[in-house]
Parts: sequence; structure tokens; C-alpha cells
Amino acid sequence: MSKIVTEQKGWFNWFKLAIDLRSSVIRTIWRRVVATMIFAAVIHWIYSQGMPVNQPVLTSLIPSIVLGLLLVFRTNTAYERYWEGRKLWGVMIHNGRILSRNMYFMIVAKTPEEKRRKLEAIKLIGTLVWAIKVHVRKEDVETELDHLLTPDRLAEIQPLQQRPLRVANWLADYFRQMYEQNKLNYRFFIELNQSMDRILEAMIACDRIASTPLPKAYSIHLKHLLLIYWLSVPFTLVDSLNGFVIPAVGVITFSLLGIEEIGLEIENPFGHDPNDLPLERFCYVLQNDILELVQYDSQLKEDSGIE
Amino acid sequence: MSKIVTEQKGWFNWFKLAIDLRSSVIRTIWRRVVATMIFAAVIHWIYSQGMPVNQPVLTSLIPSIVLGLLLVFRTNTAYERYWEGRKLWGVMIHNGRILSRNMYFMIVAKTPEEKRRKLEAIKLIGTLVWAIKVHVRKEDVETELDHLLTPDRLAEIQPLQQRPLRVANWLADYFRQMYEQNKLNYRFFIELNQSMDRILEAMIACDRIASTPLPKAYSIHLKHLLLIYWLSVPFTLVDSLNGFVIPAVGVITFSLLGIEEIGLEIENPFGHDPNDLPLERFCYVLQNDILELVQYDSQLKEDSGIE
Amino acid sequence: MSKIVTEQKGWFNWFKLAIDLRSSVIRTIWRRVVATMIFAAVIHWIYSQGMPVNQPVLTSLIPSIVLGLLLVFRTNTAYERYWEGRKLWGVMIHNGRILSRNMYFMIVAKTPEEKRRKLEAIKLIGTLVWAIKVHVRKEDVETELDHLLTPDRLAEIQPLQQRPLRVANWLADYFRQMYEQNKLNYRFFIELNQSMDRILEAMIACDRIASTPLPKAYSIHLKHLLLIYWLSVPFTLVDSLNGFVIPAVGVITFSLLGIEEIGLEIENPFGHDPNDLPLERFCYVLQNDILELVQYDSQLKEDSGIE
Amino acid sequence: MSKIVTEQKGWFNWFKLAIDLRSSVIRTIWRRVVATMIFAAVIHWIYSQGMPVNQPVLTSLIPSIVLGLLLVFRTNTAYERYWEGRKLWGVMIHNGRILSRNMYFMIVAKTPEEKRRKLEAIKLIGTLVWAIKVHVRKEDVETELDHLLTPDRLAEIQPLQQRPLRVANWLADYFRQMYEQNKLNYRFFIELNQSMDRILEAMIACDRIASTPLPKAYSIHLKHLLLIYWLSVPFTLVDSLNGFVIPAVGVITFSLLGIEEIGLEIENPFGHDPNDLPLERFCYVLQNDILELVQYDSQLKEDSGIE
Amino acid sequence: MSKIVTEQKGWFNWFKLAIDLRSSVIRTIWRRVVATMIFAAVIHWIYSQGMPVNQPVLTSLIPSIVLGLLLVFRTNTAYERYWEGRKLWGVMIHNGRILSRNMYFMIVAKTPEEKRRKLEAIKLIGTLVWAIKVHVRKEDVETELDHLLTPDRLAEIQPLQQRPLRVANWLADYFRQMYEQNKLNYRFFIELNQSMDRILEAMIACDRIASTPLPKAYSIHLKHLLLIYWLSVPFTLVDSLNGFVIPAVGVITFSLLGIEEIGLEIENPFGHDPNDLPLERFCYVLQNDILELVQYDSQLKEDSGIE
Repeated sequence: MSKIVTEQKGWFNWFKLAIDLRSSVIRTIWRRVVATMIFAAVIHWIYSQGMPVNQPVLTSLIPSIVLGLLLVFRTNTAYERYWEGRKLWGVMIHNGRILSRNMYFMIVAKTPEEKRRKLEAIKLIGTLVWAIKVHVRKEDVETELDHLLTPDRLAEIQPLQQRPLRVANWLADYFRQMYEQNKLNYRFFIELNQSMDRILEAMIACDRIASTPLPKAYSIHLKHLLLIYWLSVPFTLVDSLNGFVIPAVGVITFSLLGIEEIGLEIENPFGHDPNDLPLERFCYVLQNDILELVQYDSQLKEDSGIE
Repeated sequence: MSKIVTEQKGWFNWFKLAIDLRSSVIRTIWRRVVATMIFAAVIHWIYSQGMPVNQPVLTSLIPSIVLGLLLVFRTNTAYERYWEGRKLWGVMIHNGRILSRNMYFMIVAKTPEEKRRKLEAIKLIGTLVWAIKVHVRKEDVETELDHLLTPDRLAEIQPLQQRPLRVANWLADYFRQMYEQNKLNYRFFIELNQSMDRILEAMIACDRIASTPLPKAYSIHLKHLLLIYWLSVPFTLVDSLNGFVIPAVGVITFSLLGIEEIGLEIENPFGHDPNDLPLERFCYVLQNDILELVQYDSQLKEDSGIE
Repeated sequence: MSKIVTEQKGWFNWFKLAIDLRSSVIRTIWRRVVATMIFAAVIHWIYSQGMPVNQPVLTSLIPSIVLGLLLVFRTNTAYERYWEGRKLWGVMIHNGRILSRNMYFMIVAKTPEEKRRKLEAIKLIGTLVWAIKVHVRKEDVETELDHLLTPDRLAEIQPLQQRPLRVANWLADYFRQMYEQNKLNYRFFIELNQSMDRILEAMIACDRIASTPLPKAYSIHLKHLLLIYWLSVPFTLVDSLNGFVIPAVGVITFSLLGIEEIGLEIENPFGHDPNDLPLERFCYVLQNDILELVQYDSQLKEDSGIE
Repeated sequence: MSKIVTEQKGWFNWFKLAIDLRSSVIRTIWRRVVATMIFAAVIHWIYSQGMPVNQPVLTSLIPSIVLGLLLVFRTNTAYERYWEGRKLWGVMIHNGRILSRNMYFMIVAKTPEEKRRKLEAIKLIGTLVWAIKVHVRKEDVETELDHLLTPDRLAEIQPLQQRPLRVANWLADYFRQMYEQNKLNYRFFIELNQSMDRILEAMIACDRIASTPLPKAYSIHLKHLLLIYWLSVPFTLVDSLNGFVIPAVGVITFSLLGIEEIGLEIENPFGHDPNDLPLERFCYVLQNDILELVQYDSQLKEDSGIE
Repeated sequence: MSKIVTEQKGWFNWFKLAIDLRSSVIRTIWRRVVATMIFAAVIHWIYSQGMPVNQPVLTSLIPSIVLGLLLVFRTNTAYERYWEGRKLWGVMIHNGRILSRNMYFMIVAKTPEEKRRKLEAIKLIGTLVWAIKVHVRKEDVETELDHLLTPDRLAEIQPLQQRPLRVANWLADYFRQMYEQNKLNYRFFIELNQSMDRILEAMIACDRIASTPLPKAYSIHLKHLLLIYWLSVPFTLVDSLNGFVIPAVGVITFSLLGIEEIGLEIENPFGHDPNDLPLERFCYVLQNDILELVQYDSQLKEDSGIE
């Protein structure tokens, strides 16, 4: 949660990062870069045969300002989704913490059996967030949740479409029983409920990010403009650069396509890409917080209400 | 809700999407593109007759930066509405879920009759969201709602202007009765009410998006600038490109008009366009969630309070 | 509220809108456009006398990028106010609906007299929103409110500065009396109060938009830059365009001044301009919603608690 | 609060505003403009001596796009602070109104003494907002608050660092006493408390705006770029413009420096500049609202609970 | 909190700030600036040997608009984090104040022992915020917290991962005990809880800012574009500037790299850089506010409930 991993400052780290090709988009886009370079080579060959393919005026076909603004808009939008996705997981962890602390201090549990049920319920919060991770990533339920749920509950949850909702139902059911048995004030019931609702609200927002890409018409139009731009570039440069037109076109393609590709990569930040969010780590942070809360119990027995 | 449909990565998918003309705006704008090409052809013919129509300096008439910024502002604005529309439906589904779960766990229902009324009321939530869909899309009420409402209620709702509000009244009326019969705590009454209000708030925001386009003066001015730009382009290019001025003008028109058209298309995301939001699917997701909640009843009879 | 008035798609509507000069800003700015054209004509005449007034390098005086960014920033800001103004009226209508429904279902009214007072109070909500419209537009109170208020109350409200606050006081007074007579739960009292507060919050935000223009220093500086730009343009174009410099300057003035003028026009969206918000229509929508709520009473007498 | 002071439309007002130099930034920046003109004159003199100081290629040193974007980013940021500052005062007035109305209707006051104390407490709200004004502007407490506070309280408040917090304490103390004497429902206590907290929240946000300028590294870098730009401009223009390079450089400096200066001026909107917010007027609006509320008392004695 | 430190106006301060190199990014980036100048010198030497390394057309390799937009996007994003970080600390201080005031007025404490425990608990709020500072900055717990905690509690907190959560637990535990002993109304308990939760919410948001830099692919791509740009600049300028190409390249590198570096520096505003937020000062402000609240006690003994 709190590992400071921002860029290191200084010239050395600057260059170190600049040559870190593993996280770069180069690996993804090199094929297309090569393709445009081959195209440039062909144009150069035609030009060297004396054909009048040199047309500098074509630069105004797609004004670079229009292309630039569209690319940056795309990046912006993608980054906002990335950042919102990050915020949502912060919301989940925060409300998981609040919910667990409030359950701990608000629900009255005197007997060992009551205490056992309460601790079990508190641990369900970790399960809820884990189930949301599985849901958002479309992972396999059986392998991911079997260490957190009893076989009965695993079987119950398996055929459902919105599995985290069922986990929330279990919690809500427990709250209602406590309320009916006068072990939970009606206002506290609402408080617990609301923390849980905020976790589910974050879940549905993750769904939104994962299932709603940039409108298709937009992506397609951007690709068309990029294609037209690349197809026209060799004609505008072949006269002045001669053979160097080939690497030049490669560089141009790399710079523009890279921006588009980054947008594509961070648009859905819940996957397994190197640039995606570490969802597992977030889940472990919350589970550890719950653990540290429960330990509080054993340390301060004389103070705590659940003795 | 959670089908991951973001763009696939990789060069192959890139080109596949680039040639997917069905979702592209080409189908909508080709007539206007052809029109500017014909105009360019006319200018070229005049030029070939020796008339001095070549005026490269005209490029500074409408600075491409101004046009570019306006177009991107338009796209931005349209996308924000699209994204807000998407968020609003997330809010509706989320609050529909919360409302149904809270009704399920907060309202006391002992007799079979009480249970029947409660389940009926819970199902009204799905009807409410469906009615909002019908309202936002100005669809026909009779054909769309007859499978969700009794004929009496359908007749009652028919002549109204804000039909979803009446559905909300039915729910509110039920809550009040439960409250008066001491089957619903006064604070729970408020909680249910608030969830419902948030659904109605999302509805009125959808109304706002659907009924308030970009100020007309703005759209008109943008069209004027585009027209002036297109009319001046052939004069600036005809000398250097000669006959190629015709496809060149086509490409320029396509690139700029496409951006405007995308803005127009996603500005109101509640229609039936290929780029619009799948409202029906959102409604079915909520109805399925309610179904999965109600099934919970039959599975855990011994735990549930409404047995 | 929900009339879909977004732009129609297709080439025909595109051109139809492009020539709709009534909503265009042309009517407002033509005098200034003509003025710059006259100036260009003078420069052209001087040039034709052989004076060396041709200075293409002047284009770099005010970089078009700087001017473009400032103009778009202005438009952006103005549009955000417009959109916020639109949102605020949605908030008012929404909370007017919520408030009326909650008053209807939460306040106990058994006797005909109590019912009469309650309905009267519910109708005050419509009056409140209407009074806000009058307040925001600085309209005449007597002519606008006399059909909604008794002469006594009209006289009471007349000398005040913040008249909607007094209408809110009447409502709050009624709530308090109901609360003191045990016809309104204390928590419901708060709920009604909060809905009303949200209406007043929207009112104060409308006040903010109407009374706080873009900082004056900003508007003035933008005008200075535009003036300098126009004064320098004829010098840069007169050599290449000759007599055509006059319409060219007209077009440039039109395109830039139009953007500024649109910003000016939508900055305060509460007036009577063709591009302003239809405040009256919003008020009627709410009044109709209240009417449809009250009709509910007569239809379902057997269910309603106020019978 | 609601005086409509947006720009008047029409060509006459346009020019009237354009020559309003009092609110313009010209008064602030003319010294620096003259300095760059002197520098240009020196370069011109050197050039006229036949030295090869003409270097048009220097225009690419600081691309105008980079400079333009940075300047607009600065303006944007400054305007957002200005607008947020304006919003915060709206929040204060709104919550001042809500708080006074709720105190008026929620606190039970039967005896004249109780009524007197209640009115006194209500008037403290105006004092609270006035104290915030004094706090935000770092004004002298004694001269500004002596007409609103008794000498005792003035002496009590004098040595504190966060004086508005003490005023809030007096109010909170009064609320608690009313609560303990059963003249204020516990839930109403919270309601009053929350309105007051929102006023204090706005205060701390004003503090944030007033005490956190744009990061210094940013301001400095922007100044460096501007300096480099100005130093290079005469070299690029001296050849084509000859003696006219001097006014040209003046115009360029004026246009760019003006944008930076506006940002600087509206960044902290709580001062006494012509472009700052009218904090006093905001305070008077609230005090007048409280006055109009208290008058309500005398008008409707038979209805009011504090009779 | 409220020290007004915005830029001073006027030409003198302008230049004073312009030459303030300590806060400038020059200190950080001069090595890289020198490196590009050496590279330019090499190119110039090769050019002076008669090699045809002059390629002005290379300026279109990385359009300056694309680079400019990316750099500004980076700065924007970094500034938003900076500003959000600043807001979060405002939220913490505000809620610390609210929480302390509400604890002071809402918790009943009659006996000296009860009063002692209450004051101790109020002081824990300051400890909580201090612990958050230590947590966000990854500082050493023992040296930073030993003056605020008893050795027992310090030992208890030492091995935990999320130490501020444990401090919050102590407070929550105290609230629960007061609630169980009927010294704290259940609704006040929730109120206190919620203020504390908002502090923890701000903490988790600080964690988010500190631990989530701009996606790595983005930083790397930006560095690649900058590198390509610098490598191509000497080729484009060497012909026109001759030896002056070396300082020119230095200036270009300085201006672009500076923008990137500022972004990097303010992206994580919780460190010890000159441009970072003064977290210690924020903590002291809150501790002083709590002190001024507690002094209120001794001044007005006859009024206060904890007498």
C-alpha cells in the first residue's frame, strides 16, 4: 500500500529508466514500426528510380496539431481510468478497514461462540474484497477462493453471476441477526451496511472501467488518422533525407504509436500487464490489517468488550 | 456489466480494428466528404484552365490550432457526457442492488402474504429501472412495460409525464405502510428512501444529458469554421498537388469531419447507435441480481427472517 | 426536462444547422467584423499607393497557439458554467420531487384541515423554485409571483433581499409545527429540511455563476491580444492576397471573435438569450410533477395514509 | 451575492472594456515591457552597426507551443483557485443561512432570557464568518471585530492563532448546554454541528489556497523560459522589422507577461486587488440574511415557537 | 497553515525569483544539460570537418506539439497529485479539529479521572496525525513518536505495518467504553467515528499518491521522445547557428528537461524536497489547535461540562 516507488531522481536513474525496455511499449509495437519502415523503404526505392513521389505539401494532410491533441486526449482518458481504478481500490481497502473496526467495536459478543462467529464474519470482509478481485479479473473462482471459503459456500457461490454480492448478503444476514438479537444497535447496523455498500460501489465502478472502453468509433478514427499520417510521411521526407527516410519513419511511427499503445495498456488497469495495478497486493494489505485488528483482541483482553 | 471488452492488444487486432468500417463514422460522413472532393475537382479544373486560383497563404485563414482545439474540446465534452451517462447507469444498478438487499433484510415479513408483498415490492425495483430506460429513450410504454406491470398499473402510469416517479411512489407508499405497521424501523425507512432517491437522481441526470446538447451557437460556429477551412483548402494545395488535390481534400475532410461526427454520436449515449450504451443489458443485470438475491431466500430458509 | 433535442445526424441536418443564422453569433459580432474589414481596406489602399506596409514577419507577434489556447480556455470556462447551471436546475427539480414525495408520505394528516394545510405546503415547493427563478433573473416579484402567493405573503416577501429564503422559512415553520404536534418524526423533519437545503444550495450556486464573471483582467487582456492580432493581420497578408485581403481579414475576425462571443453568451446561462437555459420550463416540469403526485392521492384513497 | 455583473454584450461595451486600463495588468507590468524594449533597441543599434546579430533560427529555442501550454496551464490553475475560493464563500454563506434557520426553528426558547440568548447565538454566526474573513486576510482583529464582540470575548480571542475556531467553540458550547437542558434534540445538535463544521471546512480550504502557491520550481522555470524567449526574440526579428523591432518586442512581452501576471493576481483571490473577491460584501449578505430571519420572528409571533 | 506565501507582485520580485537558483531545478538537471551540449559540440566539430550532417528536416521527427502536450500532461498530472496531497492534509487537520471539539463537548466526564482520560484521548488525535506523517514518509517510529506515546504503546505499535490504524483503534476503544458506560450517546459515537474515518481516508489517499507514480511505460516513452529530440536537434541547427549551436542545445535541453523534472519533483509531495509540503508544520498546527481547545476548559470552568 505504501511502498514508495516513485521515480528516483538524478541523471543516473534517468538514463537507467530510459533504457528499461522491459516496461516500455517497444515490445508490443515493434512489428508495426518495422512495417512502416518497410513501406518507407519501398517509397525510397521508387524515388531512387526517378519517380516524382516527393510531395512535401502532404504534411498538411493531417495537421500534427490535430493528431497530437487526439493522441493526448486518448492518453488523458486512459490515465484517468487508471487513476480512478487505483482510487477505487483505495476506497475498498479503506472501507474494509472501517467495516472491520466497526464490527469489532460495535457488535456485542459475550460467549466464545458469539466471539467465534464475529471473528469469522470479520474475516469475510477480506473474502469479499478477494472475490471482487476474482470478479473484476474474470479469474477462476474455485482455485482463487477455495482457501477462503468452506466447500459449501464455494458451491453456493459458484453458479452465480455476481458472486461478491452473495458474500455481501452473508455479511448483511449476520448484521440483521445481530440486530434482531439486540447485539447491534439499529444505527450501527446502518453504519456497517453503508461501509459495505461503499465497497460494492467501488466494485461496480471497476466493472464500469473494465467493460466500457473508449467508444469504438473514436479508436477507429484515431487509427485511420495514424495510418494516413504514416502513409504520407515517406513522401514528404524522401527528398531531403534520402536513405535516412527509413529510420526517420521508424522513429515517427514509434513515437506516435507508442502514445496510443500506452493509452490502450493503462485503459483497463485491472489486468496482468507490467503497467497494471497490483490487485493481489491490495487484497493482502487489507487481510493483514484485519489480522492486526484481531491481534488487538488478545493483547488488551482486559479492555476489550468481547473478552 | 463486467464483460471485458476493451481493445485487444497486438498488431493483428490493431489492423483488424482499423478496417472495421461498420463502427466507423465513415458511413455517416461519406456524402460530405464526396461533396468537398467535387468542389476540389472544380477548383482543379479552373486551375488547369490557367486561372490564378492558387493561394497558399490562405492556410492562415483558420489557424489549424484553433480548429484543432475546438474540435478536441467538442470531442472532450461529448466523451464526458458519454462517460457520465455510463456512470449514472452504474449508480442506478448499484443503488438498485443496495435497495433490494436492504428491503430484503430490513423489512419484517412473517406471514406468507407479507412475504409475497415484499417480494413483489422488491421486483418493483427492476421495473423502476426499466421504466427509466423507457423514459430516457422515449420508448413506447405499453409494449415495453406490459410484462412488468399489471394492466391496472399500466393504465395508471400511461397518461403521466414522469412515469418512473409514479413507480417510485408505489415503493414509497409500501415503505410507509410497513413503517406505520411497525415492520420497518423509521431509520431503515429513510435508508430505503435514500437509495431510491439516488436512482431518481441518476434519472434526472440522464434527462439532463439527453435534453441539453452543446449550446447551439457553438455547434454552428464550429460548422462555419469547418466550411471556411474546406473551401480554402483546395486553393492552397492545387498548385503543388495538381490532380492529387482531390483525394487530399477528401482525406482532410474525412479526418476533421470524423472528429466532429464522433462528438455528435456519443454526445447522447442513450440511443440505439452502435456506439451507444447497452441500456437493456444494464437492466437485465439488475434484474438478474434481484433474482439471485431472492434465490438466497429459498437456500437458507433456516437463517432468513422472512421464513 | 426530457425532450431530446440533440443535433440530428446526417448531411442534410448538418448543412441546415450550418445556415441557421438566427442562433449564430453573427448577428452580434457583424459590426466588429466590418470594422476590421474597413481597416484592412485602408491598409490595402495604402499598399496600392506603393507604401511598404507589407510585414509577413508580424505573424509571430501574437503566436496563434497562445491566442488559440486562451480562446479555448475562455470557451471551456464558459461552457463549464453553462453546464454547472444546467446541473443546478436538475438538482433543484430532483430535490423538489424528493421533498414533495417525502412530505406526502412522512407527514401525518388525518383531518381535512390537516390535509389541506399539507397540500398547501407541498405546493409551496413549486413556489420556492419559481421564486428562485425570479431571484436569479432579477425579475419583477409582483408580476411573477402573484398567482402563486396570497397578497399577504406577497407583501411580506416584497421588501426582502433574499426572497426564496423567506419561502423556505414558511416551509421550515410548517415542518417544525408538525414536529411539535408529533405529526412528523424528528428524523423525518431533518430529512425534509435537508432536501430543502439542497435546493437553497443550488440557488446560491446560481447566484455565484450569475455574479462572478471571468476575472476582468483576463477579459481585458484577451481583448487586447485580439486587437493586436487583427491590427497586424492586414500587414502580413496584403502582399500575397492583394484585394482579397479584405474578405480574408473579415473571415479571421469572424472566426476568432465568434469564439470569444460564444463564451460571453453562455457564461451566464440564466438570461433570455436563445442559447440560455429554459428556466420557466424547468419550473413547470416540477409543478407538473407535484400535480401528478397529488393526483395519486385521489386515485388510491384506500391505500394512502392521509385519507 | 446576486448582482449580475457579467460582461455586457455588444460592440460598444466590447471596446469600452478593451480600453479599461485600470483593471488591466498593464499598470503592473509596464516596467518589464519597457526593459525588453530597451534591450531590443540595443540589439537594433548593434545590428545597424553591421554586426551579424540576425538569427531567425533562434525561434525554435523555446517552441512557442511549449511556452503557450505552460502559460495556459498557469492561468488555468490560478483560475481554478479563484473559482474554488468563490465557491468556498458560497458554501460559508449557504451554511450560515442553514445554521441560523435551523437554530431558529430547532432550539426551544420559551422565556425572554432564553430567547435573548438564542438570538445572541444566532448572531454569532455572522461573527464567525467575519472572523474567518479577518483570519484569511490577516487583518487586525481589534479594529475589525470590536463591533461584533464584547470586550471580554475580544480579549479572549486576541492571543489565539485560530480565532474562528474559538467562535465555533462558543457556539458548540451553547448547543451542548441546550442539549443538556433538553431544549435541543440530540439529532438536531448534530445537524447544527455539521453545518458549522462545513463553514470551518471552507475556512481551512481558504487557508490552503492562500498559503499554497504554485510550486516554486514551477514559477521559476516559467520565468526562465520567458526570459530566454525575450532575449532571443530581437535577434530573430531585427532583420525583417528593422527599427520596428522595438515596439514588436514590446507587444510580445506584453502579451506573454500579461498572461503570467493575471495568473499571479487571481491565484490568491482573498486580497484587496481589483480582481479579488469582495469578501466584505459576502459577509454583509449573510448578516442581512440573518437579520431578515430574525425579523420573521416579530412578524409571525403567533406561529413561532419562541413566542 | 495560513501563512500567506504567494508570490509577491512587481518587477523587482519577479527578477528576484527568476534568479533564485536554489529552488530551481537547475541543480538537478545540469549534468544532463551539459551532456547534450557536449554531444552538440561533437556534431559541430564533425560539421566543421565538412561532413554533411546538416538535416533541418529532422525537426519534424518528433513534432514539438506532441512533445509539448506530453510534457504538459505530465506536469498537469504531477501538479494534481501535489494539490490533492495538500487537500488531504487540510482534510486531516479539519477533521482533527472537528473530532477534538466534538470529543470535548459530547463526551460526559465528571470525575477528575474521567476528565484526565478524556484529555488524554483528545491528545491522541494529534498523535494519530503525527503517526500518519511518519507512516507516509517511512520515517523511523522510535525517534519520531517517543515523545507522544508511552513506552508500552510504542512497543505495541512498533511491529505493526499500519501503525496509524492501531492509534485509531485506541480511540475507537475509548469511544466504545464511553458508549457502554452511557457517557456517550450512540449517535455521537458514530459522529466521532466518522470524523476519525475521514482522517484515515486521507491517510490511505496519501498512500495512493506516494505509492502510485505515473505508469512506467509512460515515463519511459517520454524519456525516449526527449532523447530522440535532443539527438536530432544539433543536426537541424548546426548549419545556421554554427558554434552557437552548443549553447542553443543547452537552452533547449534545459527548458524541456526542466519541465519533466518539475513533474518528477512534485509528483510525490510528501518528501523533504524544497518543493514538498511542510507536513511537520501541518501537524504542529493541529496540535496547537487542540491546545487552544483544551485551554478553553480552564477559562470557562463554570460553563463547561467536564468541570
